[in-house]
Amino acid sequence: MNISEILKDIKESVSKIDNIIFVGCGGSLAAQYPAKYLLENQSENLKVGYFSSNEFVHASPNYLGKSSIVITVSHAGETPETVKATKLANEKGAKTISFTWKKDSSLAKEGQYVVIYDWGKDAKVENSKMGKLLFLAFEILNVFENYKNYQQAVDGFDKINLIVQKAKKYSLKRAEKFAENYKDSDIIYVMSSGASTGAAYSYSICILLEMQWINSAAIHSGEYFHGPFEITDKETPFILMINEGRTRPLDERAFSFLSKYGEKLIVLDAKELGLNTIDDTVIEFFNPLLFTNVLRLYAEKLAEKRKHPLSQRRYMWKLEY
Amino acid sequence: MNISEILKDIKESVSKIDNIIFVGCGGSLAAQYPAKYLLENQSENLKVGYFSSNEFVHASPNYLGKSSIVITVSHAGETPETVKATKLANEKGAKTISFTWKKDSSLAKEGQYVVIYDWGKDAKVENSKMGKLLFLAFEILNVFENYKNYQQAVDGFDKINLIVQKAKKYSLKRAEKFAENYKDSDIIYVMSSGASTGAAYSYSICILLEMQWINSAAIHSGEYFHGPFEITDKETPFILMINEGRTRPLDERAFSFLSKYGEKLIVLDAKELGLNTIDDTVIEFFNPLLFTNVLRLYAEKLAEKRKHPLSQRRYMWKLEY
Repeated sequence: MNISEILKDIKESVSKIDNIIFVGCGGSLAAQYPAKYLLENQSENLKVGYFSSNEFVHASPNYLGKSSIVITVSHAGETPETVKATKLANEKGAKTISFTWKKDSSLAKEGQYVVIYDWGKDAKVENSKMGKLLFLAFEILNVFENYKNYQQAVDGFDKINLIVQKAKKYSLKRAEKFAENYKDSDIIYVMSSGASTGAAYSYSICILLEMQWINSAAIHSGEYFHGPFEITDKETPFILMINEGRTRPLDERAFSFLSKYGEKLIVLDAKELGLNTIDDTVIEFFNPLLFTNVLRLYAEKLAEKRKHPLSQRRYMWKLEY
Repeated sequence: MNISEILKDIKESVSKIDNIIFVGCGGSLAAQYPAKYLLENQSENLKVGYFSSNEFVHASPNYLGKSSIVITVSHAGETPETVKATKLANEKGAKTISFTWKKDSSLAKEGQYVVIYDWGKDAKVENSKMGKLLFLAFEILNVFENYKNYQQAVDGFDKINLIVQKAKKYSLKRAEKFAENYKDSDIIYVMSSGASTGAAYSYSICILLEMQWINSAAIHSGEYFHGPFEITDKETPFILMINEGRTRPLDERAFSFLSKYGEKLIVLDAKELGLNTIDDTVIEFFNPLLFTNVLRLYAEKLAEKRKHPLSQRRYMWKLEY
């Protein structure tokens, strides 16, 4: 079953869905942020939850039950907490949809419905983890609330892969320059807002902390002015993703401040990167698909320059924890 | 009107409340986290939102309207984004409850209902910002859903101040040792889970980044194993708050790992700090009241030792931004 068929099937088999819960760990949680943001922002009636798997397992919310759809995500489908979370959701009578790239994984076996996504160099953006999750969220809005901007969203998915490919080509030299300039940094902050809040988190914890062992924090552009901005000086690098759409003023305000009081500012601007062929009614939800894919380039170049492969680990795959 | 009277008044004046939205910036957003966590976790029917003020203003959710209670918080009551958020919520027909310590502030004027809280050395925990916000959340559960553990919660508020005073006395020497050991640190990570996730965020962005200009990130104990733990080594300091209640296993797992592979580990354990006289049904929601107040000691001692007052700023109060 594809995503549209899954939702049709759920709608026909339950009397009422009143909440959607996103569950995963690390990068597989953050990949759900755009979908969560869209639903929370645009839905009239659905309640939306967003949990790190182990918190969901140990302190699941009272509303989890027969009116829930629980979405669980794990890349290789073997993250124990996420498999457990799916099992728990099944026991509570929820509908579970599991996302993984591995057909025969434990997660694929546990989920009532399974979505297999593509990954790697040749994967089209709309078929990637984050792409399919965002499409699922639009489809939920459409199936359960007859979403008025659904056609604009479908049109966005038709365009996003080309936009990303062009933006990556455009950004290649910048990514190389970034790697050259920041290869010796002890710390890099990552900032954005709105739908891209999860993309900032993901780059911070998966790329910088996990894969490069560079200190980092993700900061929300709106929160920046209420504490974090005091760390700003000429020496501290900030990656800032400037969104297209309603939260752009938050990012632009951070940009103005950092341009004045900082010096090591790395900017990815969705406007400059060509997102604007997507319709205004839905454009903000597509920002993170663009940023995540372009930032991947920045990660690859940084890893090369530092001679620290993205696959290098101290603990993961090496010991029990 | 006190908090109970405010909710009674709201219940009598609207036909239906179906969502509660928490709005604020930085420390005043984080202070709402325990209340948000409680409602999201325990409510059967209420939808719960949690937004940095400027994102709420620029990208407010579709469900904001006549069935909403919007809670806005600003310490001195003059944060422009939060005053604007309150104005917007009023215009949309929501009920607004504003928390500030300043009776004659812009926020106090804008909110339909106002709660004035105490602060400073002599403020009792139950009358502090976070204390009153958490009480509001319990009261919402009770008024709208007849919350079964309400009496246990009221009993918790009777006990929490004494618990905190004792815990502070117990922690004084430890706070001094922390200041001595970590006064020269370039970075300090702060970790917790469950209701205390916001307390970790607050210590990271308000105390370390804002008031001490020490690099920092808040990490969720469950997320730690899915990226961030790769930064762990013998040199990197982690403050870990171990909760009482359902998410304790997440914190204990992080403790085990950090004890083995880290060296600079600062632990605050709610069990050791005497939270356990509060009833098991509600204890987890009181953890952040304990941690935030004990950590304040750790902040004061650190500031003394570093000769960097907590009131020192580079930008705030000094320029427009």
